[in-house]
Amino acid sequence: MNLRKLIRWNTRKGSSNHLNRLVRLSLTHFTKPTPPRTGELDEGGRIEDVDAIITLNFTLSRCGILIEEEDIPEPLSKAQKRCHLCSYKKDQGVLFVLIILSAALVVFCNHKYCLPWLFPKTQGIPKYNTFNFIMRIITAKAPVNIAVIKYWGKRNEDLLLPINDSISVTLSKEHLCAITTVATSKDFKEDKMWLNGVETDINNPRIQNCLKEIRRHNKEENEEVHHKIHICSKNNFPTAAGLASSAAGYACLVYALGNLFQLKTDLSIIARQGSGSACRSIYGGFVQWKSGEKEDGSDSYAVELANESKWPDLRVLILVVSDTKKKISSTIGMATSVATSELLAYRAKQIVPERTKQMKEAIETKDFKTFAELTMKDSNQFHATCFDTYPPIRYLNDISWSVINLVHEINDYYGETKVAYTFDAGPNACLYMLEKDIGNISSLLSHVYQIPHENFKGQKINFTDQIPSSLQAKYHIPDAIKNVISTSVGSGPELISDHLLDNQGNPF
Amino acid sequence: MNLRKLIRWNTRKGSSNHLNRLVRLSLTHFTKPTPPRTGELDEGGRIEDVDAIITLNFTLSRCGILIEEEDIPEPLSKAQKRCHLCSYKKDQGVLFVLIILSAALVVFCNHKYCLPWLFPKTQGIPKYNTFNFIMRIITAKAPVNIAVIKYWGKRNEDLLLPINDSISVTLSKEHLCAITTVATSKDFKEDKMWLNGVETDINNPRIQNCLKEIRRHNKEENEEVHHKIHICSKNNFPTAAGLASSAAGYACLVYALGNLFQLKTDLSIIARQGSGSACRSIYGGFVQWKSGEKEDGSDSYAVELANESKWPDLRVLILVVSDTKKKISSTIGMATSVATSELLAYRAKQIVPERTKQMKEAIETKDFKTFAELTMKDSNQFHATCFDTYPPIRYLNDISWSVINLVHEINDYYGETKVAYTFDAGPNACLYMLEKDIGNISSLLSHVYQIPHENFKGQKINFTDQIPSSLQAKYHIPDAIKNVISTSVGSGPELISDHLLDNQGNPF
Repeated sequence: MNLRKLIRWNTRKGSSNHLNRLVRLSLTHFTKPTPPRTGELDEGGRIEDVDAIITLNFTLSRCGILIEEEDIPEPLSKAQKRCHLCSYKKDQGVLFVLIILSAALVVFCNHKYCLPWLFPKTQGIPKYNTFNFIMRIITAKAPVNIAVIKYWGKRNEDLLLPINDSISVTLSKEHLCAITTVATSKDFKEDKMWLNGVETDINNPRIQNCLKEIRRHNKEENEEVHHKIHICSKNNFPTAAGLASSAAGYACLVYALGNLFQLKTDLSIIARQGSGSACRSIYGGFVQWKSGEKEDGSDSYAVELANESKWPDLRVLILVVSDTKKKISSTIGMATSVATSELLAYRAKQIVPERTKQMKEAIETKDFKTFAELTMKDSNQFHATCFDTYPPIRYLNDISWSVINLVHEINDYYGETKVAYTFDAGPNACLYMLEKDIGNISSLLSHVYQIPHENFKGQKINFTDQIPSSLQAKYHIPDAIKNVISTSVGSGPELISDHLLDNQGNPF
Repeated sequence: MNLRKLIRWNTRKGSSNHLNRLVRLSLTHFTKPTPPRTGELDEGGRIEDVDAIITLNFTLSRCGILIEEEDIPEPLSKAQKRCHLCSYKKDQGVLFVLIILSAALVVFCNHKYCLPWLFPKTQGIPKYNTFNFIMRIITAKAPVNIAVIKYWGKRNEDLLLPINDSISVTLSKEHLCAITTVATSKDFKEDKMWLNGVETDINNPRIQNCLKEIRRHNKEENEEVHHKIHICSKNNFPTAAGLASSAAGYACLVYALGNLFQLKTDLSIIARQGSGSACRSIYGGFVQWKSGEKEDGSDSYAVELANESKWPDLRVLILVVSDTKKKISSTIGMATSVATSELLAYRAKQIVPERTKQMKEAIETKDFKTFAELTMKDSNQFHATCFDTYPPIRYLNDISWSVINLVHEINDYYGETKVAYTFDAGPNACLYMLEKDIGNISSLLSHVYQIPHENFKGQKINFTDQIPSSLQAKYHIPDAIKNVISTSVGSGPELISDHLLDNQGNPF
């Protein structure tokens, strides 16, 4: 096993010579072979001294050298990872010696860095190497999900419990995702948050909901859970343009926090309390959010109906109609709809249960026709209930409607449901189709909306440039759609190694 | 009584000398005083010889001189009018003499016209003076109505029975109306129809429905009801632009036919079979169309809730957003909605009955706030069910939505519901407000949409040019609204004397 790979010297400048020396020193100190602690390690084989790795990790982190979760070799189970975080309690004597040794080593090897530490008031202390600073950091990447049976309306505003079940498709993180770094340290003076590069109020009730829930579920009473926290998050798509950015964002935050504190609870329940539909971004493939019935929301969680490999030829195009901020937030919109739309109440109670059942069957049998038609009908019904709200809410504009009409004309032309639209709380269209049709449909879109092929970002499309003449003559709507994102069904959140915060917990 | 006023020489050219002579001749022939035939004439007083008038009328019409219903003096009862039409059966001897005399008189007086009649193959026979041609003609003017509780969806497509009650406001005919002339003659070779100056297929099933119903209700078996018919109709507003043109049109046709054949039946039931909402244009003021329950539709008719004098300070502005023809006709739209929208079925069954009750109360008590809010909510819900239709139907465009938003902002600004919008199956907005607010609101509309004051047609508006600064800054949408029609609540259909067909039954 390559131990050097295990550790990352988390600085962007300076030599790594002293790291190499430190690693050698540490290895020397723990050369005695120890049998693997648990059965999970048997297949790993290559790891000869788990204790050594764990203790080394801890030592290095005490020295201000950043240890990242994803650098721990795979065979180490979650339990062992936690062990690695807590092991200093068990071996305090040995650790103390190690700390002294490591500190001495660094001081002697590299005066340039260490001397300032000896005189803390002196300017120029490198932030990444203050010996008494401990920070835990983790970064997650979470996907966007697009509902095909829509969620609109809460039965409990505080717990974010919905009035009906919903079903979504998780999109590939490669093209659309939120990335969130969370760092915690007892030395942080306050909770802080940055969103897309701008410092934002962390006292947002939804963020606080998530933090509170994370702390409540941390049954092992890990002291670190009460430390101040720094959160840095970004999306690779326009926020609040109706692309469910908050869903990906909260799923990402909760997934990162859950992994940072090694929670064993269902993270979808916590994510739900940040942004309802975020619970669906905790899983990949096809996801159902069960509305549940209990008052405490404990039965309102997400389940994966099928993973991302279920329907590999299902493709998605997102037509970016407008990136201006929407006028009415989903939260306010939903609350107004629940308060005023009788049609919404009827939909939630009488229509969605049957549709949910049909949609699950369509996904199970990969019946695109049913999947597509239900998707379109449910998008329309959601927007209908927005219209029935008083004052009425409108998320679609003339361009969105041109897409709706075009989709129906395409399906009429082929005499077959080849493409489906769905719209969330914004004007952008999300189109579902099968791999075999994406070349034709993209060519038509490119023609109708005069979108250059290079503005189709994301997953590769083989344009056929076959445009039915009847449709060709009819439409020509330039400048209406700026970009198209081509993507497909994807997996759930994952941890990544590129942090958005430096080793002092500040944005780069 | 001025007998000359009784008769119109229905030609646009030629001298009226021979008419004067004919009238004198006829009067001479019937100078013996005869007592009034029935009690109805007692108050008329001035009429000295009803028989003379009646027989003279008939004589003149046999001579090709057109007698019009509205030219018969008011004291003549309906029965007497009918008598006037049939009287020749009673006095055939006298009539025969008169015919010979009149014919001889005309031949001698005016060779230019009469010689060709003696040689029918000769070119240049004036159509208005063929001696064997009898035509009955009548012209009606009917109002537009704007629903405040909407009708959308039929329970019977053939009988045009609705799935729910609706309530409308009849608008003043002075500014918006349909005008229809119907003429019938045994000498017409075929049924013919002209709509807004263009010859149109009279075999339209709706027109045929109305003709069939009119004939069915003509219990007196008047032979004329089976003659061929000529219909000429026009609107003074754009057809099919969502301004309920068909309602006014069919109401007008049925009202004209009903009066032509002196039907005693409820004309709203017949008008309903032309275009559902036409039944509401049969009355003035505030009208409810009861959906009824019977299969034969005999309990699906309109009733006047209050006449036009009920709420004199209720004012109406119609914003003409677009005069292009709408894409989906109401008929097709409704049928698709009934077939596919579960929300529509729920609305009709569960929501409208309560709303109808509330709206009737609001009208009865002239409660503008409730009237306005119900009107807006019901317009929104109707369009919501259109959206829930599959494929979805959309009648409102971005401009319509800007009006919706503006209305809510005006009401928010004043902290009071001062104005209400409603939209039928088209993008034009109909705004209800009170007289006291129309100056302010019109000034704001003029400012926001950059509409010159002179483009506000119809009823006079005293512009105040007081524009709240908060609204002033926000909007500026030029070229979106072309014209505004200012009007108010109006009366039901009426007969008028300006025909659209000449005395040969052809359009002028």
